[in-house]
Amino acid sequence: MSQDHEKSAPADGNFRDEETGEPRADFVAAVEEAIAEGDSGHVKELVSPLHEADVGALIELLDHEERPRLVELMGDEFDFAALTEIGETTREEILEELPVATLAEAMRELESDDAVAILETLEPEEQAQVLEALPAQERIVLRRSLEAAEGTAGRLMQTTLIAVPPFWSAGEVLDFFRATEPDELPDNFFEVFVVDPAYRLLGTVFLDALVRAHPKTRVEEIMQADRRRVQFDEDTEEVARLFERYNLVSVPVVDEAERLVGVITIDDVVDVIQEAASEEIKALGGVSPDEELTDSFWWIVKSRFLWLLINLGTAFISASVLKTFESQLQQMVALAVLAPIVASQGGNSATQTMTVTVRALATRELSRSNALRIIMRELATGAFNGAAFGLLTGLVAANWFQTFGLGPVMALAMFTNLAAGALGGILVPMLLERWKVDPAVASGSFVTTVTDVVGYGSFLTIATLWFRLG
Amino acid sequence: MSQDHEKSAPADGNFRDEETGEPRADFVAAVEEAIAEGDSGHVKELVSPLHEADVGALIELLDHEERPRLVELMGDEFDFAALTEIGETTREEILEELPVATLAEAMRELESDDAVAILETLEPEEQAQVLEALPAQERIVLRRSLEAAEGTAGRLMQTTLIAVPPFWSAGEVLDFFRATEPDELPDNFFEVFVVDPAYRLLGTVFLDALVRAHPKTRVEEIMQADRRRVQFDEDTEEVARLFERYNLVSVPVVDEAERLVGVITIDDVVDVIQEAASEEIKALGGVSPDEELTDSFWWIVKSRFLWLLINLGTAFISASVLKTFESQLQQMVALAVLAPIVASQGGNSATQTMTVTVRALATRELSRSNALRIIMRELATGAFNGAAFGLLTGLVAANWFQTFGLGPVMALAMFTNLAAGALGGILVPMLLERWKVDPAVASGSFVTTVTDVVGYGSFLTIATLWFRLG
Repeated sequence: MSQDHEKSAPADGNFRDEETGEPRADFVAAVEEAIAEGDSGHVKELVSPLHEADVGALIELLDHEERPRLVELMGDEFDFAALTEIGETTREEILEELPVATLAEAMRELESDDAVAILETLEPEEQAQVLEALPAQERIVLRRSLEAAEGTAGRLMQTTLIAVPPFWSAGEVLDFFRATEPDELPDNFFEVFVVDPAYRLLGTVFLDALVRAHPKTRVEEIMQADRRRVQFDEDTEEVARLFERYNLVSVPVVDEAERLVGVITIDDVVDVIQEAASEEIKALGGVSPDEELTDSFWWIVKSRFLWLLINLGTAFISASVLKTFESQLQQMVALAVLAPIVASQGGNSATQTMTVTVRALATRELSRSNALRIIMRELATGAFNGAAFGLLTGLVAANWFQTFGLGPVMALAMFTNLAAGALGGILVPMLLERWKVDPAVASGSFVTTVTDVVGYGSFLTIATLWFRLG
Repeated sequence: MSQDHEKSAPADGNFRDEETGEPRADFVAAVEEAIAEGDSGHVKELVSPLHEADVGALIELLDHEERPRLVELMGDEFDFAALTEIGETTREEILEELPVATLAEAMRELESDDAVAILETLEPEEQAQVLEALPAQERIVLRRSLEAAEGTAGRLMQTTLIAVPPFWSAGEVLDFFRATEPDELPDNFFEVFVVDPAYRLLGTVFLDALVRAHPKTRVEEIMQADRRRVQFDEDTEEVARLFERYNLVSVPVVDEAERLVGVITIDDVVDVIQEAASEEIKALGGVSPDEELTDSFWWIVKSRFLWLLINLGTAFISASVLKTFESQLQQMVALAVLAPIVASQGGNSATQTMTVTVRALATRELSRSNALRIIMRELATGAFNGAAFGLLTGLVAANWFQTFGLGPVMALAMFTNLAAGALGGILVPMLLERWKVDPAVASGSFVTTVTDVVGYGSFLTIATLWFRLG
C-alpha cells in the first residue's frame, strides 16, 4: 500500500504534469484516497509542499464532500490563502463547514486583502462572529475594507504598508527596515509611502530609488510627489484600466481627505482584468457572468434557462414576421428555404460589428472623439459586404431554384439586412452603454432580433412585390 | 488666437477629461490645429507633458497624415515608447515615414523590450539598417531578442537587469547601486539576480529582502534558489498563465544552458493577458484577432468578408436541409414558420455551452481530470432545458396554429436539438483544441451548423412522420 502511494503520488510539487502544466490525475487520486482513509499525515505530506494556487486548483478538482474534509485533515498546515484562488460557490460551501475559531485564526495569518476576500463570502452573522474573535486593531482595518462597496478599490486594497515622515533620511528608512520584525512588514514590498502627520499622502519612494540614494538624503527629496493615486470608492475596473494604461506596479489608495488607507498591487489587478474579460466573454455568449465551471447542475440549469427564455421570445417575434407572409410562402416554397440565409448572414455580419463595438467600449478605445468615424466605417463595411454577398447569393439562388427573379430579390434583401445589421451592431451597444446597461450582456439578443426581423421582412416584402404574390 | 489656444488646450496633463477619463475632443482639436500650422513649439508645449500611453492614445485619434507629422514636429522631444502603445497598423504607417537615423537614435533611448516591439514592425531591410546604425553591444542584445520567435518569452523580455555573484554581501550590492550611473541600471527594478561565472541563474534576491538583511550577509544566504524561471522560447500566453497562477511580479528568462538572458515584468504580461482576451472575444464574434479599431475600411472589409463567406457556406448547408422537405413545407406552411425557432433555440443553447468550454480551455480550468464530469453536466443541462423548452414551445405552437399535433412534434424536436447542441457545444471546442486549432476561432460555425441541421432535420422528419406528409 505504501509503495503504491509512492508510485502514484511522487513527493513534493509534482501536482502538475511537467509537459502540459495540467493537474495530474494520479496525484488527485492519491489525495482523494488519503482523504477517504482519514490519513491526516499523508494528506499533509502531499498537499503542504504545494503553492497556495495549486492547493486551490486541487480543491476544485475534489468532490463536494471531500473539500471541507481536506481543510480539516490539513489542520494548522492549511493555507487559507488557497481559498482566495477558487470559485465563490466552492468557497462558500467550504466555509459553511468550518468553525468560527478556525476562521478567526486563519484571518490573523492572512494578508488583509486575502482576509477580506474570505470574510466577504461569509453570511453577515458569521462574519460578525469572526470579526468579534479578532484583536481590535485587525478588526478595525478589516471592517473598513468590508464597508467599502463590492468592486471598489477599498475591497481590493492591502492595508499592510510602510509609511514614513518626509524628513527621514534614506539611511534612517533602511535602518527602520532592519530593526522591524519581519511579520510587521508586508510580505513583499516595492515602495515606501511618505505621509504628513495627518497621514495625508505626500508621495512615494520606490525601493530602487531609496537604495541608490545617498544615506543622508531626505526622503522628500527623492519621493515622487505626483504619483497617481486612487480613491477608496473607485471602481476596480477603472483602477485596472489605470494600471494597464500607465504600466503601474502598485497604486496608493486614499480617502476623501487624501489620507493614505491602503495600497493596490498589480497581482490583484491581474485577477480583476482576467475576471472582467471572462465576464465579457460569458455575457456575449449568453451565460451569466457569475457562472463558474464548478457550479452545480441546478444552478446552471436555472441561470441558462432565464437567458434562453428571453431569446425564445425574440425567436417568436421573428417567427411572427414569417407568419405574416404565410400565403406567399405557400405560393412559393423557395422563399421559406432562402429566407433563413438572409437572416443568418445579417446576424453574423451584425455580430462582427457588435463584438468590435462592445470590446472597444470595454477598453475605452471608443469615445466621443472617434465614434462618428467608426459608425461611418462600419456602415460602409456593412453596405459593401451587403452588396458583395447580395450579388453572390442572388446568383446562387437564381440558379438553385432556376428562377431568375430570386436573384435581384435576394440581392436587395441581403444588402438591406447587412446595412441594417451594421447600424444595429454599433448603435445598440453604444445606446446601452449610455443608458448604463452592460452592452456585453444585452446587445446580442437585440441585434439578432433586428437582423431576423429585417432579414425576413425585407426578403418577403421584396419577393411579394417582384412576383406579385398577394 | 493665442487666447483661444489657452482656452481650448489647457497646459499640462489635461488630455483626459477628469470626470470620464476619456480623451478631450478640444485638446485633440488644438493639437490638430498646431500640426496644421506646422507650429513645432506649440505641438511640443501640448504633447510633451503627456505620459507615453496618452501620447499613444492621442496618435490613434489623429488622421493618418497627421501622425508622422506629429512625430516630426516633436523632434527630440518625441518619446518613441508611445509607439508601443498603439495598434500595429498605425505603428507601421508612422514608422514607414521616418528616416533610419531617427529610428536608430530612438532605439538607443528605449528600454530593450520597447525597442524590440518597434523593430519587429519594420520591414526586414529597414530593420537591418537600423541595427547596423547601433553600437555593437546594443545590436547584439536586440538581435538576440529579434531571433526569438514572435509570441515567445525572448521577444517580451527586458535585457537590462542587475546580476551579481553569490559571494557578494548585501552591503556590497547596495554600494554597487550607488556607484553605478543611473542610466546603466534599469528604469525601475525590484530584484537582483544571482549568477555563477558562466552566467547561470542561481537565484534572486528581492530588494526588500536585500534592505532588510544585515550588510555583511552574503547574497547566496538570502537568495531564493527555487525561483520560478521561464525558457527563452516559452510561449508568452504560457508565461502569462504562470504570472496569474502564482501572483508573480517578474520572472527571469533563461536559455537552454540555464544562463540568464533577460527578465519579464508583469506590466508587459498585463498587455499579453489583455491581448489574449481581446483575441478570444473577437474570434468568438467572427472577427479577425488582428483587427484593430483604427484599421482602414478596406482592411476590415476584406477580413470580415472571408469569415462571412465561410458562414454563408454553412447557411446554404442548412438551407439544403430545408429544401429536402420542400413538398412538406408546401403542404403545411406552419412548419416553415416554426422550424427557425427550433434551430435558433438550439443555436443559443449550444453557444452557451461552447462559450463556457472555450473559456475554460483558455484558462486551463478544463483538463482531463474534470472533462467527463463537465461533459455529463452540460449534456444533462441541455436535455433538461430541451425538455422544458420543448414543453413550452409545444404548447405555444399548438395553440398558435390551432393544430394539436404541432405540440408533440415541436417538443420532441426541441429536446433533440438542445441535447445535440450541448454535446456539440462541448465536444467541438475540445476536439479542435486537441487538433491544435484555436477553438475560439472555429467552434462557432461548426456548432451552429450542427444545431441548424439537427434543428431543421429533426423537426421536419418528426413532422413528416406524425402528419404522414409524403
